[in-house]
Amino acid sequence: MTGADAMTAAMRRALELALRGPRGVNPQVGAVILSPDGEVLAEGWHRGAGTPHAEVDALSRLAPGAARGATAVVTLEPCNHTGRTGPCSVALIEAGVARVVYAIADPGVRSSGGAERMRAAGLDVKAGLLADDATALLHSWLEVQRLGRPHVTVKWAQSLDGRAAAADGTSQWITGPAARTDVHRRRALADAIVVGTGTVLADDPALTARGDDGALVPDQPVPVVIGSRATPVDAAVRRHPHEPLFFDGPDLVAVLADLRERGIQRVFVEGGPALASSFLRAGLADEVLAYIAPVLLGGSRLAVGDIGVDTIGDAARLTVASVARLGDDLLVVATPSPTAQEGAA
Amino acid sequence: MTGADAMTAAMRRALELALRGPRGVNPQVGAVILSPDGEVLAEGWHRGAGTPHAEVDALSRLAPGAARGATAVVTLEPCNHTGRTGPCSVALIEAGVARVVYAIADPGVRSSGGAERMRAAGLDVKAGLLADDATALLHSWLEVQRLGRPHVTVKWAQSLDGRAAAADGTSQWITGPAARTDVHRRRALADAIVVGTGTVLADDPALTARGDDGALVPDQPVPVVIGSRATPVDAAVRRHPHEPLFFDGPDLVAVLADLRERGIQRVFVEGGPALASSFLRAGLADEVLAYIAPVLLGGSRLAVGDIGVDTIGDAARLTVASVARLGDDLLVVATPSPTAQEGAA
Repeated sequence: MTGADAMTAAMRRALELALRGPRGVNPQVGAVILSPDGEVLAEGWHRGAGTPHAEVDALSRLAPGAARGATAVVTLEPCNHTGRTGPCSVALIEAGVARVVYAIADPGVRSSGGAERMRAAGLDVKAGLLADDATALLHSWLEVQRLGRPHVTVKWAQSLDGRAAAADGTSQWITGPAARTDVHRRRALADAIVVGTGTVLADDPALTARGDDGALVPDQPVPVVIGSRATPVDAAVRRHPHEPLFFDGPDLVAVLADLRERGIQRVFVEGGPALASSFLRAGLADEVLAYIAPVLLGGSRLAVGDIGVDTIGDAARLTVASVARLGDDLLVVATPSPTAQEGAA
Repeated sequence: MTGADAMTAAMRRALELALRGPRGVNPQVGAVILSPDGEVLAEGWHRGAGTPHAEVDALSRLAPGAARGATAVVTLEPCNHTGRTGPCSVALIEAGVARVVYAIADPGVRSSGGAERMRAAGLDVKAGLLADDATALLHSWLEVQRLGRPHVTVKWAQSLDGRAAAADGTSQWITGPAARTDVHRRRALADAIVVGTGTVLADDPALTARGDDGALVPDQPVPVVIGSRATPVDAAVRRHPHEPLFFDGPDLVAVLADLRERGIQRVFVEGGPALASSFLRAGLADEVLAYIAPVLLGGSRLAVGDIGVDTIGDAARLTVASVARLGDDLLVVATPSPTAQEGAA
């Protein structure tokens, strides 16, 4: 009988293994096969869409029959879905595994049900071991499953009175160095940075994430440009470590669906105002970041334009998650209020 | 010889006496006359413009010659100015006072110089006793002397994106109860509340300061309405405990000069957006209060309109004094940055 300690150790190892796989369309999953007396027989992890799932990867390292009576420790509920690979639940059953322990349930509509199927086949199936760690590991992927699209953060910089620029269009720099450093840190946490062609033409941004020393951080978000105007051949974004993605259209749902297919889980919308307002208006902002500079500008260059609110009762209500001072500036992080989830933001 | 303790006690008493006088055009001043052995001979305070100053009030309570060799303890430097009353410095000299101790210097161009004149007459003159307390007591009056006009706070409520109302003009209530309570508390600290006629016609505000229980607080600010349109006879502001003041014109410097003449030291500008922007544009905002509701509205109903800033270099830079969360809302208190004092705000 495999002890609880050995099982927990195996799950920790499985979580480490999971991280070897890429973040993308599929979840990062790790698996460890333990003998009845708690010895590690095999390890596996998922290397991305089209490759074996973690459990199958682990089983494939064993001689036929070697998993009979074993315990499979997996970070995510074994799938029940025949896609490019067969269902993992069936593979475990057929290998003669006696017990399966997993951390969190598979939220997929098509892929879930693995636990049930294995129980029906007589396996001992337990869920919830190190569930918080597995949830943290798969946070972004689970969010994508819940939303049905990548998670979207809409960021803008504004004066206290809500302007993105002065009357003549000048705006560099409304906010100070601490705010800019914070933006770069958050860019590095995103899988894609989205801007409108207006911003490309006006500001020629590099859309890279840089560290405090100005150097590029190892993981760069993919630059995405939305709009019908052409991006100049010498635009800075074309020198980004990743090939930029270009989308003509105003159909943001389609853009996000495309990005999801590419394995992008977290999208950082950097503007300009027209694009930010489009995301807000479409109810596609899961988080807003307003960097507020302590200046007043007046004039018509608004950080947020028309978002489809006609009367105060339809206001896009937010819940302020945090307010921080960044140098002279403020950063307000907010999420749509539960009652406003269906609304403009 | 009067001991230091007796002198400090006398100054504390003089500060108490000062508070008996009204806040207004003239400073609140108290005075205590001590005998050479530290006995209190007389007390006095200033009862407002046109009445004797505190030192003269105290001296008037003594028989002729009784102040000879005495010490006068006064919260403000005795004046050197012949206005509706003679110079206090001369009165003290003529009364034979040997020593004068005051807390803070008279900042007035015409009235200062009393200390010098008394020293020239051979009196022992010392400044600075309990200066911080006297400065706190006269904070608003000193501010008026420094500015040459009442201190102006410009307050507005806005959505995160800088709007005062939704597209159809609806705005009640953008901000929540905690923010409204805070506004009432601050109204009570002001001598006058200023609104434009647009706000009177649109919102019919009472412009009273109420406590948490909804009852009127004892000291009510004077309501002031600026604009060329008529205030309806049944407007709520006409039922204010104070007779409202009406000003036609857009000349805010003239309005503030008039209010100063009436003894108003602290002005709270409550809007609407056009009036707030006028104060900002004229560089007449010494403090701004932005109550920020966590909502997005979009549209054209801006909390701050044109403030005369054309390019980013001319932005009205502020220094954030505090950021507080009031219920769901934020309150940003800011003052013009030193380099921006000459600018739009």
